[in-house]
Amino acid sequence: MATVTFTTDFGEADHYIACMKGVVLQLAPAARLIDVTHLIGAHDVVHGAFVLRQVFDYFPDGAIHVAVVDPGVGTTRRLIAARYGGQVILAPDNGLVTLVHRDFVLAELRVIQNESLFRSRISATFHGRDILAPVAGHLARGLTLDHVGPMIDQLELLNLDPPRLLADGSLQGQVLYVDHFGNLISNISEEELIRHGGADPRMNVHVGPLRVGPLRRTYGDVAVGEIVAIIGSTGMLEVAINQGDAAESLRAEPGTIVVVR
Amino acid sequence: MATVTFTTDFGEADHYIACMKGVVLQLAPAARLIDVTHLIGAHDVVHGAFVLRQVFDYFPDGAIHVAVVDPGVGTTRRLIAARYGGQVILAPDNGLVTLVHRDFVLAELRVIQNESLFRSRISATFHGRDILAPVAGHLARGLTLDHVGPMIDQLELLNLDPPRLLADGSLQGQVLYVDHFGNLISNISEEELIRHGGADPRMNVHVGPLRVGPLRRTYGDVAVGEIVAIIGSTGMLEVAINQGDAAESLRAEPGTIVVVR
Amino acid sequence: MATVTFTTDFGEADHYIACMKGVVLQLAPAARLIDVTHLIGAHDVVHGAFVLRQVFDYFPDGAIHVAVVDPGVGTTRRLIAARYGGQVILAPDNGLVTLVHRDFVLAELRVIQNESLFRSRISATFHGRDILAPVAGHLARGLTLDHVGPMIDQLELLNLDPPRLLADGSLQGQVLYVDHFGNLISNISEEELIRHGGADPRMNVHVGPLRVGPLRRTYGDVAVGEIVAIIGSTGMLEVAINQGDAAESLRAEPGTIVVVR
Repeated sequence: MATVTFTTDFGEADHYIACMKGVVLQLAPAARLIDVTHLIGAHDVVHGAFVLRQVFDYFPDGAIHVAVVDPGVGTTRRLIAARYGGQVILAPDNGLVTLVHRDFVLAELRVIQNESLFRSRISATFHGRDILAPVAGHLARGLTLDHVGPMIDQLELLNLDPPRLLADGSLQGQVLYVDHFGNLISNISEEELIRHGGADPRMNVHVGPLRVGPLRRTYGDVAVGEIVAIIGSTGMLEVAINQGDAAESLRAEPGTIVVVR
Repeated sequence: MATVTFTTDFGEADHYIACMKGVVLQLAPAARLIDVTHLIGAHDVVHGAFVLRQVFDYFPDGAIHVAVVDPGVGTTRRLIAARYGGQVILAPDNGLVTLVHRDFVLAELRVIQNESLFRSRISATFHGRDILAPVAGHLARGLTLDHVGPMIDQLELLNLDPPRLLADGSLQGQVLYVDHFGNLISNISEEELIRHGGADPRMNVHVGPLRVGPLRRTYGDVAVGEIVAIIGSTGMLEVAINQGDAAESLRAEPGTIVVVR
Repeated sequence: MATVTFTTDFGEADHYIACMKGVVLQLAPAARLIDVTHLIGAHDVVHGAFVLRQVFDYFPDGAIHVAVVDPGVGTTRRLIAARYGGQVILAPDNGLVTLVHRDFVLAELRVIQNESLFRSRISATFHGRDILAPVAGHLARGLTLDHVGPMIDQLELLNLDPPRLLADGSLQGQVLYVDHFGNLISNISEEELIRHGGADPRMNVHVGPLRVGPLRRTYGDVAVGEIVAIIGSTGMLEVAINQGDAAESLRAEPGTIVVVR
């Protein structure tokens, strides 16, 4: 039973997701369907890339991930099928795979072109339903990836600034993602932090002008309502408020500067 | 493995949906359960009818659609089982099937009355859980539709105005649905548009007092932030803003007049 | 095919839920995964306890319920596995099981300690993914509960005030839960109401200073927009507005006093 996941910016109020699932089921009645999220910010490819990267560590080989954050639908942007290890991503070629691509070895990259796999009538605005869903259905029932279209060797990647070392020796990154709890997930990994002396107890984390303090282990290491810096469950430096909302309290958002001194 | 879908106005924060699923699973442990949406506007039967119509094109034969937007629960309104082609809808008899009924051939219509299929204790306010879910479970495990109750030949339908031709030859419809992106989906179909000269490049779409311009093919045919009229993925005339929110920008909502000149 | 359900306060925009599901699927590829809700109020253990109690009546034996509302993650709070009848709850030991515990017979209670079942790397802030999900996966593939850790005989329970009899013979409870429709679900059960004369037609329900009137059978027993007291689908006294939002109109919330006179 193949697993097909869905990561989109479609929201949950409309028929769009169910239509995609129905299309997959018509082709692969035994497929397992998993919603990753449909609350990616509208047209927010960075958000989509982040979520896709997080789930990639936890799905079994054979998983087929359909990702649709697609502001360019109907224009000349391509649709791609990218295999990393045993998992496949089907997505518009707009950078959605950037963070998976950074951290996993690309095994196979194809442009989706085989129209015999598509629905017979292709709308100009919903390729998720008319192209990606039926391709996922065919793959879920056993079609091999070489049938979707020719191999290519280039794909679009987002230009995400990595953290950088400042002249005074401190490490400057930024907030990459704000989660449901208002936790600020930065682009500074545990490895980078340690490499730059982050294990030193005199180390201090700053978010914008605010000094958060040294690295702790978990939210409950500070009192309720107090701010704390930890290595979060994503393996990245994270700033949170114990049982509170750091993004709201600190007026921080993706792009806010995070510095480790 | 039968597929049971759920379309409700229950929201997603409560236990209601999970209770319905548990009831289905107790009867049909192998059923596949698909959420269409639970974010139908509270008591908004038109919204429910629209979504149900959209998904109907994409589900395989044998699908059982449980639809619960039910302001009249516990009153004398009936519950019905309606089969169109190979798919069955279980719903209150309040017009939820209106748009499916308009576009598909009714094959079998029954009132749900066989109490031996219901849960032993029927609440006055949650027939979705106590009646429709167990009936869906029985159907999913193979019961034929004739067991749910006697055939009837009338059902409630919403009185939805179709588009009409004005004296000056223009076609007047209205916004039927606003999706998650703020796209305005009208009640004017591609066929009606073409029949009324909509393929003419001098054709112009108007939303309320605003002139949108001629029909384009996709969102990206105009610059980011600009307004565009297209045939959307539902096959209906749709007005959108490329990467923006047309409903918000145009203060449009279901009922707003759309005219094609 | 074992059923694993998820009840969390994670929201639906992030990767957290999908990561948990991926972990379960890696261990139990045939498990059925059911979302109860991920919209429990952040850190709101009472909300979680209420929802968990409601679904418990409707799931088949063998169901494994993973419940994560866990403000104390990473501190010394324990994780427990509690079996009531044929259903198992995996949760932090913070009172989430309180209402199930009140109404069902505890059959087996264990602290989750067997690290060989956990993921190899345990984060300090996401035990749902790193401990509860893999334990659920092992149980779903047939591991017996005695493998998760030693039996214990105490667990944390919320201190929820039961309704009490006032000197004038009236029964005073409170709003326990506000649902998606704004219906006010109290902590007064149908049984308590009847025991205290609630079947008497002269009985009157009050919410705060407002007199709601006598007990009715369903929402539609009053006109649209009018307030009504009924026994709701949870079996508890419920105050609603027919096709309206009682919580908003009455400015009521969990804790608001409800009196039956």
